[in-house]
Amino acid sequence: MTLDQKIIDALSGVSTATLTTVLLKKGLRNVWMRGTRPLRAGQPRVVGRAFTLRFVPAREDLATPASWSSPTSTRAAIEAMPAGCVAVVDAMGVTDAGIFGDILCARMRKRGVAALVSDGVVRDGAGVLGTGLPVWCQGVAAPPSVAGLTFVNWQEPVGCGGVAVFPDDVIVVDDDGAVVIPAALLDEIVPIAVEQERQEAWIMQEVDNGAALPGLYPPNEEAKARHEASKG
Amino acid sequence: MTLDQKIIDALSGVSTATLTTVLLKKGLRNVWMRGTRPLRAGQPRVVGRAFTLRFVPAREDLATPASWSSPTSTRAAIEAMPAGCVAVVDAMGVTDAGIFGDILCARMRKRGVAALVSDGVVRDGAGVLGTGLPVWCQGVAAPPSVAGLTFVNWQEPVGCGGVAVFPDDVIVVDDDGAVVIPAALLDEIVPIAVEQERQEAWIMQEVDNGAALPGLYPPNEEAKARHEASKG
Amino acid sequence: MTLDQKIIDALSGVSTATLTTVLLKKGLRNVWMRGTRPLRAGQPRVVGRAFTLRFVPAREDLATPASWSSPTSTRAAIEAMPAGCVAVVDAMGVTDAGIFGDILCARMRKRGVAALVSDGVVRDGAGVLGTGLPVWCQGVAAPPSVAGLTFVNWQEPVGCGGVAVFPDDVIVVDDDGAVVIPAALLDEIVPIAVEQERQEAWIMQEVDNGAALPGLYPPNEEAKARHEASKG
Amino acid sequence: MTLDQKIIDALSGVSTATLTTVLLKKGLRNVWMRGTRPLRAGQPRVVGRAFTLRFVPAREDLATPASWSSPTSTRAAIEAMPAGCVAVVDAMGVTDAGIFGDILCARMRKRGVAALVSDGVVRDGAGVLGTGLPVWCQGVAAPPSVAGLTFVNWQEPVGCGGVAVFPDDVIVVDDDGAVVIPAALLDEIVPIAVEQERQEAWIMQEVDNGAALPGLYPPNEEAKARHEASKG
Amino acid sequence: MTLDQKIIDALSGVSTATLTTVLLKKGLRNVWMRGTRPLRAGQPRVVGRAFTLRFVPAREDLATPASWSSPTSTRAAIEAMPAGCVAVVDAMGVTDAGIFGDILCARMRKRGVAALVSDGVVRDGAGVLGTGLPVWCQGVAAPPSVAGLTFVNWQEPVGCGGVAVFPDDVIVVDDDGAVVIPAALLDEIVPIAVEQERQEAWIMQEVDNGAALPGLYPPNEEAKARHEASKG
Amino acid sequence: MTLDQKIIDALSGVSTATLTTVLLKKGLRNVWMRGTRPLRAGQPRVVGRAFTLRFVPAREDLATPASWSSPTSTRAAIEAMPAGCVAVVDAMGVTDAGIFGDILCARMRKRGVAALVSDGVVRDGAGVLGTGLPVWCQGVAAPPSVAGLTFVNWQEPVGCGGVAVFPDDVIVVDDDGAVVIPAALLDEIVPIAVEQERQEAWIMQEVDNGAALPGLYPPNEEAKARHEASKG
Repeated sequence: MTLDQKIIDALSGVSTATLTTVLLKKGLRNVWMRGTRPLRAGQPRVVGRAFTLRFVPAREDLATPASWSSPTSTRAAIEAMPAGCVAVVDAMGVTDAGIFGDILCARMRKRGVAALVSDGVVRDGAGVLGTGLPVWCQGVAAPPSVAGLTFVNWQEPVGCGGVAVFPDDVIVVDDDGAVVIPAALLDEIVPIAVEQERQEAWIMQEVDNGAALPGLYPPNEEAKARHEASKG
Repeated sequence: MTLDQKIIDALSGVSTATLTTVLLKKGLRNVWMRGTRPLRAGQPRVVGRAFTLRFVPAREDLATPASWSSPTSTRAAIEAMPAGCVAVVDAMGVTDAGIFGDILCARMRKRGVAALVSDGVVRDGAGVLGTGLPVWCQGVAAPPSVAGLTFVNWQEPVGCGGVAVFPDDVIVVDDDGAVVIPAALLDEIVPIAVEQERQEAWIMQEVDNGAALPGLYPPNEEAKARHEASKG
Repeated sequence: MTLDQKIIDALSGVSTATLTTVLLKKGLRNVWMRGTRPLRAGQPRVVGRAFTLRFVPAREDLATPASWSSPTSTRAAIEAMPAGCVAVVDAMGVTDAGIFGDILCARMRKRGVAALVSDGVVRDGAGVLGTGLPVWCQGVAAPPSVAGLTFVNWQEPVGCGGVAVFPDDVIVVDDDGAVVIPAALLDEIVPIAVEQERQEAWIMQEVDNGAALPGLYPPNEEAKARHEASKG
Repeated sequence: MTLDQKIIDALSGVSTATLTTVLLKKGLRNVWMRGTRPLRAGQPRVVGRAFTLRFVPAREDLATPASWSSPTSTRAAIEAMPAGCVAVVDAMGVTDAGIFGDILCARMRKRGVAALVSDGVVRDGAGVLGTGLPVWCQGVAAPPSVAGLTFVNWQEPVGCGGVAVFPDDVIVVDDDGAVVIPAALLDEIVPIAVEQERQEAWIMQEVDNGAALPGLYPPNEEAKARHEASKG
Repeated sequence: MTLDQKIIDALSGVSTATLTTVLLKKGLRNVWMRGTRPLRAGQPRVVGRAFTLRFVPAREDLATPASWSSPTSTRAAIEAMPAGCVAVVDAMGVTDAGIFGDILCARMRKRGVAALVSDGVVRDGAGVLGTGLPVWCQGVAAPPSVAGLTFVNWQEPVGCGGVAVFPDDVIVVDDDGAVVIPAALLDEIVPIAVEQERQEAWIMQEVDNGAALPGLYPPNEEAKARHEASKG
Repeated sequence: MTLDQKIIDALSGVSTATLTTVLLKKGLRNVWMRGTRPLRAGQPRVVGRAFTLRFVPAREDLATPASWSSPTSTRAAIEAMPAGCVAVVDAMGVTDAGIFGDILCARMRKRGVAALVSDGVVRDGAGVLGTGLPVWCQGVAAPPSVAGLTFVNWQEPVGCGGVAVFPDDVIVVDDDGAVVIPAALLDEIVPIAVEQERQEAWIMQEVDNGAALPGLYPPNEEAKARHEASKG
């Protein structure tokens, strides 16, 4: 299920910091994927549906270069990715085996994948940067995936950075990392998040003008009224 | 697929220590599930086919007491377990939420489950011990599973204690913890393991008689000949 | 503020497993103190008000044997503990310096302290067991507190095992470890917990009688009715 | 208590590497705060008195957006910070909840706070960089503080990165991270540190000229004499 | 260099808790080996010279069953151990490969080795217990050493549980774990430790009699005088 | 034993990612040193023989500034390093004490050391960068080595980042970190690695041209034939 362009546009203007605050107010405290750092500084925010991949630990009879030709390989998973999706890879936080290198990332880029998000690492970091695919992960490592991981499936529920992600949940990722918006909460969250972002911009302006924090952030009734008036 | 009683009998006489040595000689170094300690000291060795369960991290919209009534709950998984299986639960090593308590373990016992193995913990430790179900895990914690975990499925490939386990792999578990024998290697491994166990018993006797280690363990040709002769 | 004996009696019959479930239903998922294991197996459940102690890391100019004679020492803190309290010691999870040894624990016992709970360790484990003080912690270590910790104060808010504990919160601790009930929630929680415990006992009986889990645990309307009828 | 400008000037010329060596020679081995990395590369060295803040773990009844309006909120703490201080925030090493975002950092900057040092992380990293406040911490995370932390007080003794920091201790922070000079040792340490820095500069010059290390670093009597002569 | 029986007798009456306090007063804060827990509860205190063994991580071309027959194998190291020594094994804290099993421990027992101390684990835990060799370590694991470790040498300086141990240092190990006394400090430490143990016994008696802690522990001048008088 | 310039030239064109794949196919899965990140982004690949250094944990009687003048100091080790070697320092993964600062790195640079690789950290990071010595490690810390480490020897087998390294093994290090090629496998590995690198370049070109992954990476017979033809 692709994502409405209006929602992409709206969320592209909302920071993951704001989104996590809004989700926490709805009772969701665990939506930020630990270890999802931008591979390249200053990558623009990305919004897309989650396409999930799942690894289990390496076992020498399964995690072999030969497995790369199997019908359930990472290669097959990549060929199944729709344009605009955000690939979310559960690598169980493993940091000494790279899930993908330059060739797989180049292919994802070709297929129009919007971003790669993982709690693991990539390999051939320089090559991956060269492909232009936006990547958020824990960093780089030289060894191939099979040195530490066995690929098992795609489009299943996964854990990524300590967060549950289901296929078709919405992922937003920026300088602060990756956040999941559960698919069922999307319509409720978006307008609140957009408004919250606006309010914070006004508060920031007030602080720049020398205002003190108590009563302003969060705003009391008087401050809210001033904000409303300022929209005038 | 149940397990032939002959294989159960054979493997019941082989320690997990010996099994890991035999598997390592076949190139498999990562078959012992970290954190699988016996909840009760001195539990007899258990052998059975793996029946797998899989959790992802808790998300407050999913990991709720209400989820316990869902068709994909741990309750439903337990009702699907065949007698004689070893339940292998991927709890991602989480130690602050108990996967099962006394009620679920009592039901597993009733269904003839041979053992519960997990890289997580159980809750109501005293109650679980009371059910008589043999359990290997990281210990106990009071909170319910939904405090840290979302249950997603059963009979899928899982990671448990850093080891890949597939449904129907064979699990052997004793005082040293749980070991997986890949289903495809079973027939090859069993006779070698039985013989290795016999050889180690003879070596132990030699050491008790005052023999030095070099040349004896591992045995050189002369020692092997003496062992053969001793079989009379 | 001491604790009403009726509440102590009521909570003495409720497991920490049940308490965490009840608190989770009120939105509190983080109330179980990680690492609080009984030093002696089979210690009875303890209920009491929290008396908190706080350490920061060791700095060689502060964490010295001389500091043990200071007015803000652990010795002074112990002399301030009321009978019946549960001492909750924030040791920041440090496991290589023992917060207390046999002498301090003997004195706590003399003063009628109900239990010692910490995310750290004690020292002279054999001596501490000898004092009869019930202790829940991560284990034992030989070195004195000042090898790793600087004591700073008592009766302040602390973190213990990843959980916030405030003076006069209520602590319940059994084989599964220590749980905090926020003081303000006590009256609301106790009756629900007692009822939940009763219900689980009935469910356990049903399982013993061969009932399957779905519909029973958690109970659907029909099961609830049968439970009510059974109270007859 | 503000810091004499002469001391600021002197310490501004001394690296934290040199300071830790000088403090170790006085018996203090644990003065460097782990995890205090510059958020922006190449930030100049900062020297100031410590203004401490303390968090405990999040508990859902306390760690709420509503708590931000409480009299003991981080907002109130910031309004109490004197110009020139270094805010030292004990976040217990938590890296999945940001202690402050752009608004709070902007206000600290307005108040003349010299730097923010924490063993936790900030949120809205891009926004924080935009405020110009010099920050040393473990990095960034999107979630608000209340997702993982409960704020409890300011100007108490704290632990930060495994180091004890008391209000009014002196903090020096540069590319290598943050170091505490206990207030009582300040006068003794400063002249030794300045001289040590001078000596190391001379040794570096000697190495550049091709000198071998033994006898030079640390300098034997002959080398010391040459250094003295070079001051000529 | 064997250890004088008088010193063994003296140290056999001193707890590791007391020893670490005495060593800390001499400036040594890091002498207790983390992770050295007794494999069997209630093992008597052991005192002996350190005989060190060193592992590095496993590399598949080196860490093989064939390596067990090499001249630098653990087998050869065991044959070099003198009676009465304490074997101190640097396993780098690895807990998923057992350094020794029942056969090697049986041989050590035969050679009169006083105890085995390691920051790693043993395998075939039941078998090791059966040999009667006193063992302090992190627990048990099924896999052989070569699954995670490459043996490289004996009688070299090693790290064990985060502590530096040199051949011929003195090791004391009891319920609280293992402590190193640097060989050069032995003569100075022993009499102080014996006296400290005596003083603590007297203090414990005072506490049993109802004395409060301040002024007693540590004793002020008046308490010291009373202790002296009590020696009568 | 220095390294043939032809081998240096060949390996300078092979990424560590490719090398780890080739070594894995030979059964070596554990050859990449965890934590070896480039101190300066974009450092060129370095190839050289390993010159090893070994630390154990700090003990206050040994790890002193005075030890820097000892005959077994890091200073002496540096003076023994041959030009072109890669210094591999086993710091046991310690990240709160810097193994070397600007002066030692400047001297290594003078002696023609090709690179410094460690699983620990350096100190005076700005100064170290100024020396121009290529460094791969976990980052920077202010404290001197003796705050956490005792230097014991050079040119022994060591562990670095969880990998066994022997003197004269070959080290290749680039943006993805450091990889060891066991000395005995060098001749076999080099030509395979060079060819593998060439094949991956061709595959990358195919992907750029829009080819799908299955059958291409790894190449099936048809793809291999096309690659051969392309060499034409």
